[in-house]
Amino acid sequence: MNAQPSRRSVMAAAGSTTVTAGLVASAPQAAAASIHASTLAPPAAPNAPPQGADRQTCLAVARAILVLDDDNRPLTPAYTDILLGKGLPRGGVSRRVLVVGAGPAGLVAAHLLREAGHDVTVIEANANRVGGRIKTFRTGGHENAEQPFADPAQYAEAGAMRIPDSHPLVTGLMESLGLERRRFHLVDVDASGKPANRTWIHVNGIRARRADYQARPRRINRSFGVPARHENTPAADLLRAALAPARALVEDKRGRELVEGWASVLQKYGHWSMYRYLKERAGLDENTIDLIGTVQNLTSRLHLSFLHSFLSAALISPSTAFYELSGGTATLVDALYERVRDLVHLDRRAVRIEHRPGGGVTVHTVSESRTSPPVTEKFTGDEAIITVPFSGLRHVTFTPAFSYRKRRAITELHYDAATKVLLEFSRRWWEFSEQDWKRELDAVRPGLYAAYRAGKAPTDGSLLGAHPSVPDGQVPERQRIHYAAHRAPQRNQPEAARVIGGGSVTDNPNRFIYGPSHPVPGSPGGVLLASYSWSDDALKWDAYDDEERYPLALTGVQEVYGQRIEIFYTGKGRTQSWMRDPYAYGEASVMLPGQHTELFPDIPASEGPLHFAGCHTSLKPAWIEGALESAVRTALEVHTG
Amino acid sequence: MNAQPSRRSVMAAAGSTTVTAGLVASAPQAAAASIHASTLAPPAAPNAPPQGADRQTCLAVARAILVLDDDNRPLTPAYTDILLGKGLPRGGVSRRVLVVGAGPAGLVAAHLLREAGHDVTVIEANANRVGGRIKTFRTGGHENAEQPFADPAQYAEAGAMRIPDSHPLVTGLMESLGLERRRFHLVDVDASGKPANRTWIHVNGIRARRADYQARPRRINRSFGVPARHENTPAADLLRAALAPARALVEDKRGRELVEGWASVLQKYGHWSMYRYLKERAGLDENTIDLIGTVQNLTSRLHLSFLHSFLSAALISPSTAFYELSGGTATLVDALYERVRDLVHLDRRAVRIEHRPGGGVTVHTVSESRTSPPVTEKFTGDEAIITVPFSGLRHVTFTPAFSYRKRRAITELHYDAATKVLLEFSRRWWEFSEQDWKRELDAVRPGLYAAYRAGKAPTDGSLLGAHPSVPDGQVPERQRIHYAAHRAPQRNQPEAARVIGGGSVTDNPNRFIYGPSHPVPGSPGGVLLASYSWSDDALKWDAYDDEERYPLALTGVQEVYGQRIEIFYTGKGRTQSWMRDPYAYGEASVMLPGQHTELFPDIPASEGPLHFAGCHTSLKPAWIEGALESAVRTALEVHTG
Repeated sequence: MNAQPSRRSVMAAAGSTTVTAGLVASAPQAAAASIHASTLAPPAAPNAPPQGADRQTCLAVARAILVLDDDNRPLTPAYTDILLGKGLPRGGVSRRVLVVGAGPAGLVAAHLLREAGHDVTVIEANANRVGGRIKTFRTGGHENAEQPFADPAQYAEAGAMRIPDSHPLVTGLMESLGLERRRFHLVDVDASGKPANRTWIHVNGIRARRADYQARPRRINRSFGVPARHENTPAADLLRAALAPARALVEDKRGRELVEGWASVLQKYGHWSMYRYLKERAGLDENTIDLIGTVQNLTSRLHLSFLHSFLSAALISPSTAFYELSGGTATLVDALYERVRDLVHLDRRAVRIEHRPGGGVTVHTVSESRTSPPVTEKFTGDEAIITVPFSGLRHVTFTPAFSYRKRRAITELHYDAATKVLLEFSRRWWEFSEQDWKRELDAVRPGLYAAYRAGKAPTDGSLLGAHPSVPDGQVPERQRIHYAAHRAPQRNQPEAARVIGGGSVTDNPNRFIYGPSHPVPGSPGGVLLASYSWSDDALKWDAYDDEERYPLALTGVQEVYGQRIEIFYTGKGRTQSWMRDPYAYGEASVMLPGQHTELFPDIPASEGPLHFAGCHTSLKPAWIEGALESAVRTALEVHTG
Repeated sequence: MNAQPSRRSVMAAAGSTTVTAGLVASAPQAAAASIHASTLAPPAAPNAPPQGADRQTCLAVARAILVLDDDNRPLTPAYTDILLGKGLPRGGVSRRVLVVGAGPAGLVAAHLLREAGHDVTVIEANANRVGGRIKTFRTGGHENAEQPFADPAQYAEAGAMRIPDSHPLVTGLMESLGLERRRFHLVDVDASGKPANRTWIHVNGIRARRADYQARPRRINRSFGVPARHENTPAADLLRAALAPARALVEDKRGRELVEGWASVLQKYGHWSMYRYLKERAGLDENTIDLIGTVQNLTSRLHLSFLHSFLSAALISPSTAFYELSGGTATLVDALYERVRDLVHLDRRAVRIEHRPGGGVTVHTVSESRTSPPVTEKFTGDEAIITVPFSGLRHVTFTPAFSYRKRRAITELHYDAATKVLLEFSRRWWEFSEQDWKRELDAVRPGLYAAYRAGKAPTDGSLLGAHPSVPDGQVPERQRIHYAAHRAPQRNQPEAARVIGGGSVTDNPNRFIYGPSHPVPGSPGGVLLASYSWSDDALKWDAYDDEERYPLALTGVQEVYGQRIEIFYTGKGRTQSWMRDPYAYGEASVMLPGQHTELFPDIPASEGPLHFAGCHTSLKPAWIEGALESAVRTALEVHTG
């Protein structure tokens, strides 16, 4: 999923330039004073500070970014103790607690509260699974899922897929549960495991290895029409330089100084979009912004909060180590579910919640069954932890109505789309050398290797899954027809990729293509994340049914890696459109300009006996770490409240 | 649908204040000069103009807003002549022309070109209808649709529903085709047809007639926590005052001065969001912005282009007269289709388009059939007019690839979501007086009128469709179960609405509720636009299946109008989610900050033998007028090219 850094990762972000921060944007304020209508704002002082939020709010949000208490003391050590060993403090009155939503936040809060002596009930909308936006396409599992791919051993992530080592709660939790972790290669590696940076950048019809682009960016940069002074700087370096003024406010700082630094970032840029920052603070032209946006995955979120992407850019960087779980991220869910399985009521979606200020909650639910008449059931308790994304709470009725500010946060918090299209191959061709290709292609048909190299292999779909490892008839005829109709134009065959893990970037609709970091034991094949896209890019995949989407995604991969990969395509794919998930309504909260200070402070705040958890109540949306922080926080609220 | 004004409507926009325009935002520029990284932008001059687009680009886009040629001469008179009488100029070589998409742009361009002697083929993705985002839920029609509502005479608009009289092409076209138009009441009227402004504003738990709010805004304004100086100004007036500085640049101007004025708007604010403008130019606080956004329908688009909403606010105002077509907007499509029916190939979606610079186009298509194997067919011609929304072109392969700037426009042009949820009622209860209510309710069951007034009628769904005009068993049991589960909390019964047409606004998920402006002849019932929402608000309705969405939408209407309306609910509804429409991919293009100058100039530009039409190629996206402008423009390009 997506990115927000911890304090550590931000401090570790590259670059050590200093800037004269200075006051930004005082003129608009002065100009605003010239507005005619006297009922509007009174004239601002000519040298008023930028129209950011007030300092106290910025400090509060800065503490939330850094996970500090009101006295700037780190909360994470205490949270870690509670989560991984000690549990909640001893003592207190046993309460009846309803937990709405069995994602990681709900599962962990339920466990902590039960261990502390509370009477806990977990209510989950899905009829057959828990885990929220942790979801692995796999055979079996706690959800007893149907086999998603041709090879029953294969699996792939629909949601959370990488865990940064800078996230102590989730890292510790995985370890304490005895789960096997291994490296997730954000940057592709060679056979010896060393970073190789050989995945492709494929933009404006030009294809280059990432390492080659980094060394000689000129050809690609010129294809975006960037000014001469930016021609020889790779996009990542341009972005790093552009972010330097904001980064300078926080890097190399500790303690109170760091809090003040983040508050300054919030005050200066909290109401800015990334587009505005790149244009007006970094002074970049539109072509350079387009280059950075395309290669560094910012374009679809340029109009969203600067702060969101600023934090992401710091976390999703080559210097952060990421991990994955053997068997899939859902193995974490399996372990968390096992501890509280007896508390969980599946197939019960909350639609109306009554609450009394002094305590007392009734949650009315309906079943998700769309064929037989739905079942309704109500649950009662003293307090409740609501982990549902705010996008989902918009249609839940609360009686009495919440405070104005909480209602506004629920209504306006922005959720972004993200879609993953996964394709299965019978061999991990991305690891192949040219020799491997020659052997395997000529095994299909003598001369086929040369035919592909010359761009002369047929394009009618007859070669989809043509390798002997794909059983005849497995690729549906409908897919072949769509493939032949869509057929990507580019037929030049690049050299063998020879990569493990990592991701290629393209300006075609696929946008980002990730390979698995490790083989699935016993399987010669692999599932490729053929397209990972966000926001507007993501929504466009929703128009297709599976039998068209998969061949279309395949042609996008072929544009980058060459046509010949088609012989290993098994005809099997899976799609996760988080915006279309009926209980997620989006990948995660991605705030709009201003929402960090205007909405965030009200998001985790309790309303009477109702407490709010889930990654959107942290400043690590889309990250398991944020969900876990919120689980411990709300468990404490209930337990000590 | 949505809004962009013509020159006339903008000039007619209210307010005549003058402001000292002055230079806006010079400081960010100066601050940007302090960036450390020397590879970035060179220091800007301390008093450099705001970082908007260059003047020539702004002038070009200003001319597109005003529909002027390069010499600032109005194009609309010539377009009107061509569209309504004279047709294309005589002479020229007959060409084979492919028109991709049979919305209003495609249907009109095809007719003009055939009349001028060209050999025209129209290719349409839908298997059973033409008209694009003009779509009426009705029985029969050219699409031979199944009966959508309980009363076969009833119909309602899924798309375009109102036509401003400031749009000369569409107004003239309707007249020339002999279609019957009548007023669309943007503001509700009384029985004598006079504007009454009696629809409801229902926000923060407070309900007020619009006229009462206009006269005494204090209670509602305070519920948003606005500062004291804004307490007594209605939201519409606050917005008008806030927009005054931008409006002053264009109002009361003519000819070249007006072009310069719009260029200045573009240069100053073209790269701004509406949020930024309200905050930094108008100096409004977040609570006042929330008030304006909620009541004036801006919230969900605050982060999008200032210019888009600025133009909308000018058009969608009480001073603009709107019209609708008797029998539905699709009657316009019927008439346009009738002229070219023999040219149209239905069920053929373009997926790949080959073109040669000197002329020559091949369009590869697939059928939409999702059950039987799809059919592929290719069409060839000398030139083509592509009317598909750019969101849909993202997945179409063009060979050879387009220019960088065109590709960028296709990739990045933002489309917004919009969803309509329509509910049918057996009586037009919104026109009722209290006497009407008493009579009809007590006909169901003596004392029912009083029971509703006292908030004591049952809430278990047993009264859905309880009036004798709704046949027993017509409301599905599943809907009753969902209704009972969701049941909106507010049970106080406001006085009878007694309105015709117009719209209520609420901060509940329904957001905007529009009543029909006219009865359907012979029908005592009516279809209510129970929810019209955009952007994030719209996407949230997508999570539900119909049998849950309709009772949920009903409870939202009940919160505003009272519980008793349920007795007339027929159990029938229709939903149009434009983002989920597989060929629309959104309601319309709604540009992001900066896209008016960075992308727009490249949107209508031809690529070799390919010409681009559709409302997104005009600066009236979502309006039929924009589609018609583009139809005449591209027909001229082909004919005289």
